[in-house]
Order: sequence, then structure tokens, then C-alpha cells
Amino acid sequence: MLAIGDELLSGRTKDKNIGHLAEFLTLAGIDLKEVRIIGDEPHFIADTLNTLRRSYDYVFTSGGIGPTHDDLTADAVAAAFGLPIGEHPEAVELLADYYAGRGLEFTDARRRMTRTPEGATLIDNPVSKAPGFRVDNVFVMAGVPQIFQAMLGNVLSTLPAGRAIASLAIPCPFGEGDIGDPLRALSKAHPAVTIGSYPKFDGDRYSTEIVVRSRDDAALKSAAAAVTAMLEDLGRARSKG
Amino acid sequence: MLAIGDELLSGRTKDKNIGHLAEFLTLAGIDLKEVRIIGDEPHFIADTLNTLRRSYDYVFTSGGIGPTHDDLTADAVAAAFGLPIGEHPEAVELLADYYAGRGLEFTDARRRMTRTPEGATLIDNPVSKAPGFRVDNVFVMAGVPQIFQAMLGNVLSTLPAGRAIASLAIPCPFGEGDIGDPLRALSKAHPAVTIGSYPKFDGDRYSTEIVVRSRDDAALKSAAAAVTAMLEDLGRARSKG
Repeated sequence: MLAIGDELLSGRTKDKNIGHLAEFLTLAGIDLKEVRIIGDEPHFIADTLNTLRRSYDYVFTSGGIGPTHDDLTADAVAAAFGLPIGEHPEAVELLADYYAGRGLEFTDARRRMTRTPEGATLIDNPVSKAPGFRVDNVFVMAGVPQIFQAMLGNVLSTLPAGRAIASLAIPCPFGEGDIGDPLRALSKAHPAVTIGSYPKFDGDRYSTEIVVRSRDDAALKSAAAAVTAMLEDLGRARSKG
Repeated sequence: MLAIGDELLSGRTKDKNIGHLAEFLTLAGIDLKEVRIIGDEPHFIADTLNTLRRSYDYVFTSGGIGPTHDDLTADAVAAAFGLPIGEHPEAVELLADYYAGRGLEFTDARRRMTRTPEGATLIDNPVSKAPGFRVDNVFVMAGVPQIFQAMLGNVLSTLPAGRAIASLAIPCPFGEGDIGDPLRALSKAHPAVTIGSYPKFDGDRYSTEIVVRSRDDAALKSAAAAVTAMLEDLGRARSKG
């Protein structure tokens, strides 16, 4: 994923789209491998996009497709692909109707939102009409979270779902320092699963959530049972000692 | 910044450190130029770190320095710099005392948290002792937000502050489509400032926050006055029309 916007880097806006995309890709069985956040600089957007689209099956972008001068994503995407940019006829029709229906002027600024690289297909925006677009394996979406989420929903339904990774979360009253050694042994003994441990700190002491993940159900259950048994052993040892 | 952790990419954990770092760097007058989020893969961490540390003045990392088998950041940083890794004597002393004081065993897992690349200097962790560390221009910090924030506070006080960018936020009742054209003209007329516009959508209609930023106070005030005048003109034109 590529999140675009100076406001994300200045801390003025806290991104909400990355976590949403991450959750929804996981549900769809698509692994999110990398996220980058960069500012509204067209050359840097184009270079970064070229790196990402060549490295991964899909790239999802957020931000920079509104009507103002700092919305530079469409131009940057066109530059990345070496494609000319122009008004997309379907988008023009869509927005002309929409603004006419609301009694608003179809300003030059609003027309900017119809510009896509040549050959792009539109991504529907049920919230406020101005569409996103797809070029090859790149999905260009809005930064406003309601709109990003609506667009993403439309996009994901068109992608082949992978085999979803199942996960089991096991709460653990001990800190990572107590379980680190046995957990490392378990992780080696169960190569078909990944075992993550996520520390929580309540201001005084640590607890942990252990998460076991796998695409193989039997391996998942066997590893989760081994983790639970390990925690019970540790609990017994503690209450004795 | 480089945020490290499978849990960030699966959507299980929503990152809170990026926004915090962004805000604090802005206050310190240091521009955040890029953020990447990647998983717990040592080679990819090392490669990414090498790219970032050669591109930027500083790199701040979060995550992967705890006591469990999926905490691989220290090894990856050592690999990136081509440095051997070992137990840092100060860190060993610090943690041995800390756990002894709390009646906890200094397990092998906990000893893992004393490992740093050779020559690293420690970053103090007032919350739970296990330190972060600095190698050259790379600051390696914890992923748990309370600890990340405490470590970052210690780090920023050691860095030379830049000239902070001042900003003025101007609320605007109109959507970006209405102000896009005049705002583009203003942006061209005031080259020493950057003008950002951030759409808000309340489910029915758009409003906008216009943010003017500059390191030059006089330019900032003049641009802000021009934006305010533009909005007043637009308001008058609306109420007439």
C-alpha cells in the first residue's frame, strides 16, 4: 500500500486507512507485505509507485485525488506508467450529472477529479461520486476514510481471494520475558505456523497475547494446543515456586 | 521512519507510533519524509534500513526488540551495518539489577533484550528498562506505544532542532470543489508557503480545512490573509447569487 499526503507526515492527520486495508486484505486472504507513507511530491510518488508495482501483485494507494492543487496522485500515476492523462469520459458524465443534480457548479477544480491516465478503469465512489481508478495492478483511491473504505469494498470484490490465514489468539498472563524461551522452542517445533507474541503493558506489568497463524487448520490447532499446554505448565511451576 | 511488525500488516495491531513521531518531529522542526511498515523478516528489514539510512539524516524504527523469537530487529540492524551483535554490558547490568529488584528470573529470553550491534549506544527506557539503541543515524526503539514515546522523548532532546515550520489552519465552509481554482492561484502567488487543503465529509456535505505552512513568518501571515480574503469573497458571491 502507498498512503500519500503531507498531512500524514506532519502528524496533522492520523492515518486510518492502513489499518483498515490490513484487516480487509487479511480477511480476503491477501497478504499485505509493505506500506509506505510519502508526501505530495509527484516525482517521488511516481518513483515509489514504480518500485512497489513491480515488487508486488497489487498496489493500493490512498490520497491525493481530490480537486485541489495539492492533489497530484493522478498525474504521478500517469507519469509512473508513462501514460498520457486526460478527462475520463465516464467520469465527466458521472460528475456533471451529480453536480447538476445538487445545483452545484461543475468547476474546473471539480473537473480535475475526472482526470485519469489513459486506459484506466473507474472505481465507484458511492459516497461522493468522484471515482478512483485502476491502472494495471494499481488501485488509486481517496484518502477520506469513508470513501477509501467504500472504494476498497468495491475493489476487493473484484480480486481473486487467496486462502485466508486462520488465527487463534491465546491470552497469556505472563510477560514476554517469561515465555520467550519456551515459545522459541514451540515455534521451531511447528514450522507450518507462525507464532507471534504481542506484549501489553498496563503501566505496572506486562501480559502477552500469543497469536498462532496458519493456512493449515490441523497444524494451527496442534500448535495452539501446545502453546496452551506450555502456559499451563508455566502456571503450575509458578504456583509451586 | 521504519515500523516493524507482522501484526501491523495483518491489521491486528493499529499503529500508534507513526502519528506520534510525525507530530513530535514537526514540533522539533525536523521534516518526516517517508514511513515504511514491514514485517518481521530479517533480510527485508536489513535491506530497507540500508535504503533509508542512506537516503535520510535520521531513521527511527519501532518494534521487534522484545524478548521473543519474533523479535528480530537487533539482528537485522547489525546485519544492515555489517556489525557483530552481542550483549551490551551496560544493558546486562541494567536488566540484571531490574529483574533482581522485582524478584524475576533473568531468563535467556530477557537477556536477548541486551543484544545490540557492536558500538551501539543505549536509549533509556524509563517505562520497563529494556533499552533501545542508536547505531550511527539509526534509532532503534520499542513498538509498545508508551515505551516508544518515552524513548523518542529521550532521543529528540539529543538532536539539533531545525527551524520549526509554523502553520495556520483556516476553517472553510466550502468543499474543495468550490475553492480548488482560487486556491491554486493563491498557491502560485505565494511560493514561500505550502497551502494544503484537507476535506472533511460529514456524510452529507464537504467542508475543508485550509492549512498554510511556512518557515517564514511574514510570508505565512500574508498568505493566510489572502486565503481569508478569498473565502470572504466566495461567501459574498454565494449569498448574492
